[in-house]
Amino acid sequence: MRIHVQNPPDDPAFTITPALWAAAAAAAGPAGAGHAVSFGTTPADFAAAIAEAEALVGDKDVLRALLPAPAPRLRVVFVANAGLDNLAPFDWLPPGAILLNNRGTHSVKAGEFGLMAVLMLASAIPAMVTDQRAGLWRKRWGRSVAGQRLTVVGLGALGGAVATQAARLGMVVTGVRARPAPHPACVAVVAAAALDAVLPASDVLVLACPLTAATRGLLDRRRIGLLPRHAGLVNIGRGPLLDQDALCDALDAGLLSGAVLDVFDPEPIPPGHRLWTTPNLIISPHTAADDPDTYLPRSLEIFFANLRALAAGKPAPTRFDPARGY
Amino acid sequence: MRIHVQNPPDDPAFTITPALWAAAAAAAGPAGAGHAVSFGTTPADFAAAIAEAEALVGDKDVLRALLPAPAPRLRVVFVANAGLDNLAPFDWLPPGAILLNNRGTHSVKAGEFGLMAVLMLASAIPAMVTDQRAGLWRKRWGRSVAGQRLTVVGLGALGGAVATQAARLGMVVTGVRARPAPHPACVAVVAAAALDAVLPASDVLVLACPLTAATRGLLDRRRIGLLPRHAGLVNIGRGPLLDQDALCDALDAGLLSGAVLDVFDPEPIPPGHRLWTTPNLIISPHTAADDPDTYLPRSLEIFFANLRALAAGKPAPTRFDPARGY
Repeated sequence: MRIHVQNPPDDPAFTITPALWAAAAAAAGPAGAGHAVSFGTTPADFAAAIAEAEALVGDKDVLRALLPAPAPRLRVVFVANAGLDNLAPFDWLPPGAILLNNRGTHSVKAGEFGLMAVLMLASAIPAMVTDQRAGLWRKRWGRSVAGQRLTVVGLGALGGAVATQAARLGMVVTGVRARPAPHPACVAVVAAAALDAVLPASDVLVLACPLTAATRGLLDRRRIGLLPRHAGLVNIGRGPLLDQDALCDALDAGLLSGAVLDVFDPEPIPPGHRLWTTPNLIISPHTAADDPDTYLPRSLEIFFANLRALAAGKPAPTRFDPARGY
Repeated sequence: MRIHVQNPPDDPAFTITPALWAAAAAAAGPAGAGHAVSFGTTPADFAAAIAEAEALVGDKDVLRALLPAPAPRLRVVFVANAGLDNLAPFDWLPPGAILLNNRGTHSVKAGEFGLMAVLMLASAIPAMVTDQRAGLWRKRWGRSVAGQRLTVVGLGALGGAVATQAARLGMVVTGVRARPAPHPACVAVVAAAALDAVLPASDVLVLACPLTAATRGLLDRRRIGLLPRHAGLVNIGRGPLLDQDALCDALDAGLLSGAVLDVFDPEPIPPGHRLWTTPNLIISPHTAADDPDTYLPRSLEIFFANLRALAAGKPAPTRFDPARGY
């Protein structure tokens, strides 16, 4: 297969080098062998390769800047990200080509981050950091998470990992997802339509779902008001899942105990934005799920697993459904 | 047994009420029955009870203010804390009386806090909070803790719980303690004298040992310099275990990646102290190990377990050795 890898122009930590590719291809066995591979970083590199490419590999920001493009032979587009919302609408995808993401790459780091954020809320760390900013020593008693009620919206690679980690510490986990299939870490899984009913019974709420037409603005001002006053919020999905201004208002008014956010609208957060000074809020700059040590090798492993499945006539394991949005 | 409970004058969350006592005594079976119990909050209450008391129950700050006292019949002093360093020297203890602490009370919450702090360092949260204070969006890539090397100094109820939690996430844990007996969560346990050798191989260092003559100043300026530049530090033991100024200097100079501290010297941290503005440092106001929901019931459970053992002629499970300091 003729494969083109388009790398970011200036981000060595997220560049798929020929050496990294060769190692992943060798580890993939037959699925990694016999390909003609080109590597590019500039629009000219991309233009030179795309007309002949049968598979394209790149991250969402790189591809967003270059697509659509005349790609008559393209059959596979692998995006080295899980959430592809910023590539929508997907009308740039050539007919007959399939779209793949790298979901699963992030599950270990995201699970650890989610567990950390839940523990931080249980120990009142966002409030302590606000006190620290003011030079104020004030006792704030936390609670063990064992027995506390966690609600996780989205049970994919990210949310599922958070649910699993939290359940191991004795939390009572309720899942919320589009189709309410059971999950081994959850005592209950409800459909998104039942969200209103579970919010008042949530000590901590974690948003870990994709951003789609159905989930945009999911946690609006009314729903924030359904959370208990002692509740904490974590967002590792996408910024526009929630009404950010309503959340800031709730934190300003002490209507929630705290929040740990990894995603925002917009990103980067502009200088002087109210988020920077909202109390009881911890800002992580959209890094929760990424581990540079494992990110690219694991992404390529997933890419080759898809090639292997396709070669065997099986469904591609991380095929992305443009209509559904994940 | 004639038991006197001396409560803090103004802290309802840490007051042993007659109702709380009755519930714990009932749960303790025969060990909880047949006692004559008095409750006090003022020095006058204490003075009225101590001459006749055979057992005294209180927290370290309450007792520190009232002891020594003429207590000719006192046989048991139960302090509802684990670290009794601020009651040293122990010359106030009447001859023939034994001293008990509540070690074990804190293990669940402390284990969760320690795990949280280790995850926070792996995700660069202290640096992110420093960036946030400056209104600065800057990507900082964290790493999964799986495979990272954690060194825990002190493997009692606190350090042992942290080691266990960290090992469950795949960390490679080395323990350091006075007598290097093995620990199930540790790949190795070394004696305190070998600390210098393990510091350079520590991605995260957790201090969780008691403060004694042997551990005061344990992590001095020279030893801080033995840690790798990417290392993070957690202190849930006591402030004077480390050279706080040397730590602040190291954080100012970027010689460590971050620190999460729950204990300080002095406490409370005075207004304007350099700790408040030291970069890459998270301050928790000495609350890491406390869970008000479980603290007092669990402490009383431990008290009655001691009475049960003593009645059976067995060693008291949480007897505190004044000579050793823990």
